[in-house]
Amino acid sequence: MAPLVQPRTLKGFRDYPPALMVPRERLLETARNVFRSYGFAPIDTPALEYTEVLLAKVEEGAEVKKQMFRFEDQGGRDVALRFDLTVPLARFVSQHVNELGLPFKRYHMAAVWRGESPQVGRYREFMQCDFDTIGSMSPGADIEIALVIHDLLRALGIERFSVRVNDRRVLNGLLAELELPVEMATPVLRALDKLPKIGADAVIAEMSGAGIQVDKAQAVLDLASIKGSNAEIISALKERFANNETAMVGVNGLAQLVDVAKASNIDDAHIAIDLSICRGLDYYTGTVYETFLGDLPTIGSICSGGRYDDLTGRYTKQSLPGVGASLGLDRLLAALEQLDMLGSTTTAPVLVTQFSAGRLADYHRIARMIRTAGIGTEVYPDMKKLGNQLSYAEKKGCKIAIIAGDDEFTTGVWKVKNLAAREETTCTEDQLIATVREILEA
Amino acid sequence: MAPLVQPRTLKGFRDYPPALMVPRERLLETARNVFRSYGFAPIDTPALEYTEVLLAKVEEGAEVKKQMFRFEDQGGRDVALRFDLTVPLARFVSQHVNELGLPFKRYHMAAVWRGESPQVGRYREFMQCDFDTIGSMSPGADIEIALVIHDLLRALGIERFSVRVNDRRVLNGLLAELELPVEMATPVLRALDKLPKIGADAVIAEMSGAGIQVDKAQAVLDLASIKGSNAEIISALKERFANNETAMVGVNGLAQLVDVAKASNIDDAHIAIDLSICRGLDYYTGTVYETFLGDLPTIGSICSGGRYDDLTGRYTKQSLPGVGASLGLDRLLAALEQLDMLGSTTTAPVLVTQFSAGRLADYHRIARMIRTAGIGTEVYPDMKKLGNQLSYAEKKGCKIAIIAGDDEFTTGVWKVKNLAAREETTCTEDQLIATVREILEA
Repeated sequence: MAPLVQPRTLKGFRDYPPALMVPRERLLETARNVFRSYGFAPIDTPALEYTEVLLAKVEEGAEVKKQMFRFEDQGGRDVALRFDLTVPLARFVSQHVNELGLPFKRYHMAAVWRGESPQVGRYREFMQCDFDTIGSMSPGADIEIALVIHDLLRALGIERFSVRVNDRRVLNGLLAELELPVEMATPVLRALDKLPKIGADAVIAEMSGAGIQVDKAQAVLDLASIKGSNAEIISALKERFANNETAMVGVNGLAQLVDVAKASNIDDAHIAIDLSICRGLDYYTGTVYETFLGDLPTIGSICSGGRYDDLTGRYTKQSLPGVGASLGLDRLLAALEQLDMLGSTTTAPVLVTQFSAGRLADYHRIARMIRTAGIGTEVYPDMKKLGNQLSYAEKKGCKIAIIAGDDEFTTGVWKVKNLAAREETTCTEDQLIATVREILEA
Repeated sequence: MAPLVQPRTLKGFRDYPPALMVPRERLLETARNVFRSYGFAPIDTPALEYTEVLLAKVEEGAEVKKQMFRFEDQGGRDVALRFDLTVPLARFVSQHVNELGLPFKRYHMAAVWRGESPQVGRYREFMQCDFDTIGSMSPGADIEIALVIHDLLRALGIERFSVRVNDRRVLNGLLAELELPVEMATPVLRALDKLPKIGADAVIAEMSGAGIQVDKAQAVLDLASIKGSNAEIISALKERFANNETAMVGVNGLAQLVDVAKASNIDDAHIAIDLSICRGLDYYTGTVYETFLGDLPTIGSICSGGRYDDLTGRYTKQSLPGVGASLGLDRLLAALEQLDMLGSTTTAPVLVTQFSAGRLADYHRIARMIRTAGIGTEVYPDMKKLGNQLSYAEKKGCKIAIIAGDDEFTTGVWKVKNLAAREETTCTEDQLIATVREILEA
């Protein structure tokens, strides 16, 4: 006989047992429902693509290029596993835009692979969850993204959160006013993005290190420091940038968002203009979003994104704009766990035990009856000692065990055991669903 | 500027646009709910594993070995994409059995990769959907698998189907009685598995070509040909194999399934003993399942599986038995399409159009109101011509467009357009949800 093979996963990869998968499925299901309720539709694309296609949008020397799982397939093709969902979206839209029509609103929940050095909470395979509207330049599309993030967090039962929104064009308008050359935008963004981590002085020092005069760096920080209610910020911006056309495109978009949020009864705490949010990436050209949890501010943004001018330019002559965001699934799951909001990881709360040989049909009949009432119920498959069966129920997180032996079958009753309370009651078959429900709802 | 890269997918791979993804998500959601209602819990495992681990259970010369997407990763490891979900399950259970406890009931919905020659309906990347109970030898576990398949098809709204069940041990008992050597079991299974395709004469010819005497081949066919109600088949088997211990293990298991189905009010048409079902694979050792659609018998089995003795033997000294089945997602989706049961591929049935500039907040407020009533609603992002907006709605499969311009805002009403019927009605904001609902439910 061949020697045993040690069962193990690759470095940086992990298994998802039920305790991790049940919350992940629940989160994805909630997200899916919210996306759909706004008319976003799901797509999927191959995990494996031509390397050339995946790299079309990647800059020379980018880290991700070294991290790709890339190889030659059986047919001698240079292929790689996707490392994000944005590149496949760009390829997909370029290829199918005529059938899809525009605007095209999609969500995509799928694994991506990056050969990063594994560290705590970082894996080489992880799931991304992106949603975007492609082909509209209107602020209406940007506003919708903020509303989706808001509704998603509400749907997860999170009350204290803040979707923070800014518009790059406000900053761009300021940079133009300061007569900073275009190539200075990147160091400004990179430095400003670090504000919450390193503080104002360090941000100014970094900008000035990049060749930006201190007074101009200070002007950037002054803009980022404008605080107040949404209405106050908008009115300050309207005054400050009255004659700055570029900045006013951004200001007007933000003002419309504020109007919509107000009419939708969403308060300033939940969707907030925040002029210090800029996202470090050159990629974004308009609205930018970050989302923070009130009870876990240090965990960082759990949903981020923004508007971009050119999704498809590397694949077609048609340049398509878009706006979207990406839900940080692992971060959000970690947050829900810390907030004790992960919920049950049990799939069926009721276990019907086996006690009398030859009664399997009755056990299954009863389980089916409870299941049909919408309550997940399993029958323990083996005729083991009751103690073993109850241990199984407890390990799986069941709330209730249902027990019947010869005595019960003779008298026509069922024992219902509340596993947490270690209490047992007896009832007739007619009362069974009500009894189970009462314990589950207690 | 760099030259354009042609947007394309690899041979044998495909994109899933919303028209394919919405039905797939719906099918998976239905399956998930049924699996969970029986206490099956989700797991996931890495797409990429050590080649050695994936090949541990694969026989020399097996086709799948040549089809693997196998390569050396950045760390020089010999790795490959998984080609099924059974091998990862075996590895997963071997590795985690102590934390998981037994019996362990899991479902797993995930992509697998095989470099097969692409042909119609065959892809190199496809999704599998498996569910299994590991660690129980009891017929209770086998029976549950049949019930899950039954409930799943019901939940999909399919009425005419048949879960066909047999037990290999009945056939094994017969082969022992016929004094056929053990190595003859495989050619018998391979031949019998073809019965519906090639007919009785060809099956006998194939067996006899493999060195089985014609009278013994005929005896195998005679067993497979026993027809009747479940009760009739069980009673025929009990008589035929009264003194055949091996066969009676199978017969008793099938008899218990028939009892449970009867007590659960499931009729013989939906769960049927079929002694001609054997599955061609040596892998199975007990119960076997195939599932056929009454309206599309030629499409083949849409859910198949069985019991196996040794899932984990190549990874641990502990040999664990299991029983399970695999839902043929692509085949089932093709069937639902043929039966015109795919359902809507629209995620939000209502479109709020933009007609008056400066009214975006009202459009979003109304959309939110309808959405909060549980009806997916999107706001068209741009202020385009109404005709363009209505074309978008029709292309997306929306049922209703909501329209309000200056006149409507002045008089405080909304126009509700039934897109299919090309009818328009007018109502106040208070009546809007009821009006929308009426059209959707018509």
